Amino acid sequence: MKFNALLDDIVSYEAGKPIELVVRDFGIDSKDVVKLASNENPYGCSPKVQDAVRDIVANMALYPDDSMMNLKAALSSKFEVNEDELIIGAGSDQVIEFAIHAKASKGSKILMNSITFAMYEIYAKQVGAEVVRTTSREHDLEEFYALYKEFNPEIIFICTPNNPTGDAIDAQALKKFLDKIDSETLVVVDGAYMEYTTFKDASKSVTPKELISAYDNVLYLGTFSKAYGLGGMRVGYGIAQPDIIKAFYKLRPPFNITTLTLEAATVALQDEAFVQECIAKSFSEMEHYAAFAEKHQLEIIESFTNFVTLVFDEKRSASKLAQELLERGMIVRDLKGYGLNAIRVTIGTPAQNDRFFELSNALL
Amino acid sequence: MKFNALLDDIVSYEAGKPIELVVRDFGIDSKDVVKLASNENPYGCSPKVQDAVRDIVANMALYPDDSMMNLKAALSSKFEVNEDELIIGAGSDQVIEFAIHAKASKGSKILMNSITFAMYEIYAKQVGAEVVRTTSREHDLEEFYALYKEFNPEIIFICTPNNPTGDAIDAQALKKFLDKIDSETLVVVDGAYMEYTTFKDASKSVTPKELISAYDNVLYLGTFSKAYGLGGMRVGYGIAQPDIIKAFYKLRPPFNITTLTLEAATVALQDEAFVQECIAKSFSEMEHYAAFAEKHQLEIIESFTNFVTLVFDEKRSASKLAQELLERGMIVRDLKGYGLNAIRVTIGTPAQNDRFFELSNALL
Repeated sequence: MKFNALLDDIVSYEAGKPIELVVRDFGIDSKDVVKLASNENPYGCSPKVQDAVRDIVANMALYPDDSMMNLKAALSSKFEVNEDELIIGAGSDQVIEFAIHAKASKGSKILMNSITFAMYEIYAKQVGAEVVRTTSREHDLEEFYALYKEFNPEIIFICTPNNPTGDAIDAQALKKFLDKIDSETLVVVDGAYMEYTTFKDASKSVTPKELISAYDNVLYLGTFSKAYGLGGMRVGYGIAQPDIIKAFYKLRPPFNITTLTLEAATVALQDEAFVQECIAKSFSEMEHYAAFAEKHQLEIIESFTNFVTLVFDEKRSASKLAQELLERGMIVRDLKGYGLNAIRVTIGTPAQNDRFFELSNALL
Repeated sequence: MKFNALLDDIVSYEAGKPIELVVRDFGIDSKDVVKLASNENPYGCSPKVQDAVRDIVANMALYPDDSMMNLKAALSSKFEVNEDELIIGAGSDQVIEFAIHAKASKGSKILMNSITFAMYEIYAKQVGAEVVRTTSREHDLEEFYALYKEFNPEIIFICTPNNPTGDAIDAQALKKFLDKIDSETLVVVDGAYMEYTTFKDASKSVTPKELISAYDNVLYLGTFSKAYGLGGMRVGYGIAQPDIIKAFYKLRPPFNITTLTLEAATVALQDEAFVQECIAKSFSEMEHYAAFAEKHQLEIIESFTNFVTLVFDEKRSASKLAQELLERGMIVRDLKGYGLNAIRVTIGTPAQNDRFFELSNALL
C-alpha cells in the first residue's frame, strides 16, 4: 500500500534500551541491570504519590476527567498562570507535536540547536517541515539570531537546559534574544530539566510566568518525567498565552492523560520537598562524575540537569564503552547518533553511580 | 498569532461529562452521581489487574518498555497474529490518528457512516481531508460501495458494532464488501465493542486474523477501554499486514503507553473469564432496557454492545430528558450532536440501571 510521501523521510525515535530488553538479549538478571540512560529520577516519585495512586486503582475503568480540573488547578497555582494558559500533554512531547502541527506545514522552517532533543526533528518531518540547525554544540543565541534572520522560521526551539548536553542559557541573554523575535514566530522554550537548573543557578532559571507575560509568542514546556519522578506516567505541559493554547486544544486528542496519571501528577505537586531533596542528592552525586572525568581525561560538559555528558577524545570510542557497559548490564546513552563521541549518563543513586564507576574504571 | 488554516475547521471532541463536573456544577455528592455516558465496564477491570498495578506503583518513575514486549506477546497469542502485524496506541483513537496521518492529506476523501464515532471526522479534519458520509442510520454496505465508486476514498471506516447506535454488520456481508475494494484503499474495521458482538451473535463476529489474512488493505481496531474495563488507562491496538504497521510506526510517538497501562493490559488478557462474566451480565441487564423502551414507546436499536440507543419520536425531546437526568446526577449521552433525537445509555450495574429507570419513569 502507498502512504503519504512525507513518511519516507521519517526515522523513528530511538528510545533508551529498556531493562526488559537487556535482560532478554544478554541473559542478565533484571535486578543486576542498572539503567542510567533516560534521566529518570532514581529515587522515583514521592511515596505520597504512590499511596494516592494505589488508592484509586479501582478507577482504571473510568475515563479520565478530560477537563483535568484538579491538575490544571494545581499547575495554575504553582506557576501563577491562568488555566486558559495551560495545556497538558502525554509528556511534553505531545505539546511539541501540537506546536508543530499547529504552526508548521510542508516547506516551513524550524530552527533548533545543532545538538538537541531528537523529537523536534521527528515531529517536524511528520508535517514536511525543514529543519535548520546551528553549528555550535551549545546554544549560541547570536547564531540563532543570524539564522532566524536568514530563514524566517515558523518555530524556534530553545532547549534550556539542553538535552543531551546539559548546558543552560543565561536567562537575561534569553530575554534579549526573545525581544528581537517577531511575534509571528513561535519560540518554544523547553524547560524539561528546569527544576535542576533553578536549584543550581538562579541566573539561568526562567519561569513560564515571566516568559508569557512578556512575550505573546513563547511556549514554555515542562514535564513530570524528570524531577517529579513520573517518567512512566506520560505527563507534561505547555504554558503560553490563551490564543496559542486554544489552537493547540484543537489538536489535542480527548483523554490524552490516564486516570492514574492525573492523580499522580496532582499529588506530586503537593510534595515539592521530596523533589527538592532528590535534586540536591543528584547534584551532590554529580561531583563524583567530575572526579571520574578528570581521572580518565574525559571532557565533562557543565550540567544543569540530572545527567552528565562525557565527551571522549578522538583516540577513544564512547560507543565502544557504551556497548561494553551494556553487555555488563549498565545502560547509558551513546550519543553517536547526535554526532558526538560521547555518552550521556543519568545521575543515579550512590549505589548505581558506584557501579558505573567500577565497571567503567575497569574498561577504560 | 496565525496558525495553519486547517485548524479553522476543527471542532474539538465533546467527551461525556465527567463525574467531577456534575459534582461541581450541580452540587451533587459524587457518590450520588451515576455515569452511564461513556460505555465503561461498570464492573471495572479484573481484580487481578488491580492487584498487579498496585504491585508496581513504584515503577511509575521508569519510562515504559517502548518495545511493549509483554503486551505485544499477549496480544499476538490471543489473536494468532505476528507481532509485526500489531501496533499499540493510547486508545484505539491513536491508531485512527496514525491511519489518517499515514494515508490521507489535504483533499483526500474519507468515507464513513452517516452516524458513527466522532473521532474519525476530527482526525480527518486535522489533515484537511474531506469526509464523505452515507445517508442511512445503520451501515448500508451497498450505499458504501456506491460512494466508494463515486469518490474513490483513501480510507473507509466501518464501525461494527457501530457507536453510538449499537447495531452490527453481518460478517459474511462485510467480507463480500471487502472483496470489492481496491487494495490501495485502506479499510478500517473498528471493533471497539466486538467482544460484546461475539458473545451475542457469531454471525456478526469478525476476527482480526481472518480479516488480515484475506485482505492486505484492512486495519482492525480493538481496545481495552470497553469490555476489559480499562477506559481510564488509554490503550487500544491496530492489527494489519506488516507494511501498514510499519508505516504507522513512523508516526507513533515514543512511550505512548504508560508503564502502569502496559501492565494492566497484559494482565487483563490473563483473565478472560472476568470479561466474559461482565459481558453476560450486561446483556442480561439489557433486557430491562427493552422493557423500559416498550413501556414508554421509545425505539430501541438492537444492540450488540454494552449500551442501548433509545430513539424518541418527534413529539418528545431526548435532549430534554438527558438534561433533566443530568441535573439529578444521572449522566447519559444526548445524541443531538449526531443528528438523532435519542440518548445513548451504557448498561450499568443493576443498581445503576434501576436508578436510571426510576428517574426516567418519573420524568417521561
